[in-house]
Amino acid sequence: MTTATADFSTRLDQTAEDTEALLAKLLSDTLLSDEIARPKRLMDAMRYSSLGGGKRLRPFLVVESSAVFGVPRDAALLAGAALECIHCYSLIHDDLPAMDNSDLRRGRPTLHKKTDDATAILAGDGLLTLAFDIVTRDEIHSDPTVRLLLTRALARASGIGGMVGGQILDLAGEGRFGDREPVDVARLQQMKTGALLRYGCIAGAILGQSTQQEYQALDDYGRALGEAFQIADDLLDVEGDAAALGKPAGADAALGKTTFVTQLGIDGAKQRVRDLLARADSALSIFGAKGDVLKAASRFVADRKS
Amino acid sequence: MTTATADFSTRLDQTAEDTEALLAKLLSDTLLSDEIARPKRLMDAMRYSSLGGGKRLRPFLVVESSAVFGVPRDAALLAGAALECIHCYSLIHDDLPAMDNSDLRRGRPTLHKKTDDATAILAGDGLLTLAFDIVTRDEIHSDPTVRLLLTRALARASGIGGMVGGQILDLAGEGRFGDREPVDVARLQQMKTGALLRYGCIAGAILGQSTQQEYQALDDYGRALGEAFQIADDLLDVEGDAAALGKPAGADAALGKTTFVTQLGIDGAKQRVRDLLARADSALSIFGAKGDVLKAASRFVADRKS
Repeated sequence: MTTATADFSTRLDQTAEDTEALLAKLLSDTLLSDEIARPKRLMDAMRYSSLGGGKRLRPFLVVESSAVFGVPRDAALLAGAALECIHCYSLIHDDLPAMDNSDLRRGRPTLHKKTDDATAILAGDGLLTLAFDIVTRDEIHSDPTVRLLLTRALARASGIGGMVGGQILDLAGEGRFGDREPVDVARLQQMKTGALLRYGCIAGAILGQSTQQEYQALDDYGRALGEAFQIADDLLDVEGDAAALGKPAGADAALGKTTFVTQLGIDGAKQRVRDLLARADSALSIFGAKGDVLKAASRFVADRKS
Repeated sequence: MTTATADFSTRLDQTAEDTEALLAKLLSDTLLSDEIARPKRLMDAMRYSSLGGGKRLRPFLVVESSAVFGVPRDAALLAGAALECIHCYSLIHDDLPAMDNSDLRRGRPTLHKKTDDATAILAGDGLLTLAFDIVTRDEIHSDPTVRLLLTRALARASGIGGMVGGQILDLAGEGRFGDREPVDVARLQQMKTGALLRYGCIAGAILGQSTQQEYQALDDYGRALGEAFQIADDLLDVEGDAAALGKPAGADAALGKTTFVTQLGIDGAKQRVRDLLARADSALSIFGAKGDVLKAASRFVADRKS
């Protein structure tokens, strides 16, 4: 392990730990400011699905893209926690019997298996809504315009032109609504998984009140990283180890899904990842050494084993 | 029909019409600013459940509470449309087989009957997310702090301390998670239906940058109106006409639900509504004649037949 990798790994773990502690605080049973207690069953369900691990890659991207501009870490962590709430809600709803019907997630029963479908639907709705409570908070930035930009960008990344839209395209491609619909894998994944990862990268530019050029650089970086993430995911489904994944491998093939691997082949997909990493590095070049952690992040995303 | 009533009815209809047109525009198939097309199946589902009628009571409250302060109507309509998106999403998710399992809504098949559960879950998620896109828009107010307050209040009213929290308490009271849990009807309804109605009333104070006293007056009014709305709902379930309701009456009794009527009796519930209307009037007194439409609104809510 090189020093740079060790440093990266330490930073990733530290942000995961800080995010876990922050989410635990945000999801505690204390009273809200409007003096209505939080229903325990709902909070337990939200905690089950958002606490207890995970790489916290999206919050990490928020923290590290913010660090480029010297944004206070606590502000970035809060914005990252909002993004993680969206990510966790999307997993809960995707796992539902009416959607992907998954029993396992990170080696544990999915929320609806642990509780029931109604609780899972509402816990997802609660996390989605909580994200917009968090991202508007005063502690994130003193300038309300910055918080508004961050809030609207989060809504766009999560909504019909982003994650939710990508999810329905994915189901359509599986033939869930009749005949299989033709899939533009790049576009689908740009929406389904790419939009939130990209948001993690531009969040730093928004919080750092960057120049337009710097924003564009992080946007380009985020798009490349998002696609590399998904190709790595598709490769893991073919070549990965079920134990490391915490879920069965080969799920895509079983569904007959169109993926980057079915489109490009294994070698083509690996070459595409190398091209994307070069594009990510190139986008970051304007930041000099300040972009080094993000460069390592795209490598981590591309090389991960789970 | 008195002149005041005729005027009220005209205003209500006009806002319903304007809200319908605005939602149709917001839910059109045009491109988003981030140049990703909106998936048609998802948009069709969202339109099915948000267009085509309804009293649009919540947008009406936003428009009329805003009118007290001379807030531009277009700005209030946009904030009202965001609130209506939340209301429509909540109906879609509540109707799901895993929740209330309803086949009919306003005399038409519910969205999951018309399409499928996956589409309904995602259309709900899409509307919830879209609300936060809309409520942050520049056209709502030139001062970003005002838009932030509006956004955060919407998240609070919709979330774990508001609507979503109330929904899980409701299901718990029906015995959906084991033994029936004891129900505090007033608290449950303050969260489940009251929070969004109250938001409609305080939205005007936020948009109008009111004094603290004026905000408190609209808050008190909104709480009284919200409770009156729910008691009227409970009374309609006992005394109402299925044809006018667009759904079967007697649903609460069939579920053995604790309602205001089971707690107070029919006469007691009607007396409670009269008390609430007096409290609503009293709260509005500081606005003088400017509060007249809102006074009529609380009467409309209490006397409605569907």
